[in-house]
Amino acid sequence: MSDFKVNILGCGSATPSLRHMPSCQVIDYRDKLMMIDCGEGAQLAMRRMKLKYSRLNHIFISHLHGDHCLGLPGLLSTMALHDIEGTITIHTFADGAEIIQQIVDFFCRERPYELKFNIIKPENAIIYEDKSLIVETFPLYHRVPCVGFIFREKPKLRHLNREMVDFYNVPIAMRQAIKAGEDFVTPDGEIIPNHRLTTPAQPSFSYAYCSDTIYNPLVAEAVKGCDVIYHEATYDDSKIEKAAQRGHSTAGQAAQIAVDAEAKKLIIGHYSKSYLDESILLDDACRIFPNTIAANEGMTIDIS
Amino acid sequence: MSDFKVNILGCGSATPSLRHMPSCQVIDYRDKLMMIDCGEGAQLAMRRMKLKYSRLNHIFISHLHGDHCLGLPGLLSTMALHDIEGTITIHTFADGAEIIQQIVDFFCRERPYELKFNIIKPENAIIYEDKSLIVETFPLYHRVPCVGFIFREKPKLRHLNREMVDFYNVPIAMRQAIKAGEDFVTPDGEIIPNHRLTTPAQPSFSYAYCSDTIYNPLVAEAVKGCDVIYHEATYDDSKIEKAAQRGHSTAGQAAQIAVDAEAKKLIIGHYSKSYLDESILLDDACRIFPNTIAANEGMTIDIS
Repeated sequence: MSDFKVNILGCGSATPSLRHMPSCQVIDYRDKLMMIDCGEGAQLAMRRMKLKYSRLNHIFISHLHGDHCLGLPGLLSTMALHDIEGTITIHTFADGAEIIQQIVDFFCRERPYELKFNIIKPENAIIYEDKSLIVETFPLYHRVPCVGFIFREKPKLRHLNREMVDFYNVPIAMRQAIKAGEDFVTPDGEIIPNHRLTTPAQPSFSYAYCSDTIYNPLVAEAVKGCDVIYHEATYDDSKIEKAAQRGHSTAGQAAQIAVDAEAKKLIIGHYSKSYLDESILLDDACRIFPNTIAANEGMTIDIS
Repeated sequence: MSDFKVNILGCGSATPSLRHMPSCQVIDYRDKLMMIDCGEGAQLAMRRMKLKYSRLNHIFISHLHGDHCLGLPGLLSTMALHDIEGTITIHTFADGAEIIQQIVDFFCRERPYELKFNIIKPENAIIYEDKSLIVETFPLYHRVPCVGFIFREKPKLRHLNREMVDFYNVPIAMRQAIKAGEDFVTPDGEIIPNHRLTTPAQPSFSYAYCSDTIYNPLVAEAVKGCDVIYHEATYDDSKIEKAAQRGHSTAGQAAQIAVDAEAKKLIIGHYSKSYLDESILLDDACRIFPNTIAANEGMTIDIS
């Protein structure tokens, strides 16, 4: 397994069924866990998948329908009982921050961690950045304000060619800059081009999460070039009108987004509870975009 | 199965584990379902036990710790999606009513049912009554205000002895009063004592739910004479001090309550997540009160 994975904790739609939990995913990136949506039961699903509460510091909420966030009160209470310290940041809309703060203040007054809110808007923006990863929002088109999220690795450092570095006596203090792509100037003024001192960096990968949305080609533009795309596929293609009425997509429409975005892999989910299995949805998607996976609880998918 | 049963939907304590869900029970009494506490996941547990949302009209919350009520937002949202109509009454403390109303107004604005609150206090009171059942509260002794609930069948009607009723020509209009225990006065003024016209009524049964509480003999007094008692047993008897510190009881203490209350049957639950099975708790209880059952999710227990 790589160091950039997504875990599926819930991939059902609004009414939970005995087959699927409501929406929840956890990005496992190096030492960090980052949760995307937090449907009821998320805390148990974390235990089931052996994802440690202590590694979780960021929770991204796509929109404020209950099936995407009603797991928060229980999760935050349990994290308090587990003596989790540090800062937990919830990225959500302003009204969501307000109600979540009220709930947590009532049910979880004493908490060893600091709870922060990062107020997001349904627009294109960078909402999180660290030394190796950025998280961006982009608008989705649902019945209420809704965003998707892109988890994008920053360009990685090139690898030093040890022999050449020794040959040119590159000082240790300059090596980081050379890994980042700079040329080396010797004490004599000779310019050694970077490509003679380094080999290419590992590629950087990206994952786009397209939560509840009607089919809209703007989504494909927003996630263009992402390696792996999750896109909701609440209905099969025969229910294209019902999907539009309810602000959702069909499996074929999800696949069209993946095609237009030139993705390498598509994950579908957010299945209506009317399906006893997902084969019809997977068939609809695969006809248009063959490299499609039907999400299922407990699944871990490599992004890199 | 009788027409008075209790279903165990969750019998774990504050931190849900993979073995137990947080507190939730459902009384199945004739045509009604009445929920006691509503931990996260209650809505799914109802589906799992095939308990229909449409039969549920009353929810009783013992206290406002998250593991006893954080299933409400999801349950109430799903009941709205299922087009449940009529009135749903939540029996809870005033501050609970306020926060639950706020949550439901945010996440479940459009609901086909009417949501009512019956404000209760940690005292002895009748909080619900219909033609055959009453529900009473009594104080428990936890870290926050907490009540237990007694579900008590009203005295039932005696059975008419058809032959004697015909012999004395008892008018139809008077039969209900005679079933209720009255004597019959013939047109000649002769008094026919009730016991000549009827056979005894079926016995009435009662169920007491003792949620989170420190051991307190007053609890036994409050539930004296109840047929079946549920009493929390968070810890085994070796942890009697820890139990007291945290406002909980041991299994042996739960059993002592059952002995002192002269119960016929004891159900223990609210197990600390530290137990990998409940045999030590059951052993501690059975030494003192042999007719003890260890609650488990999915279990249905006859009260009558």
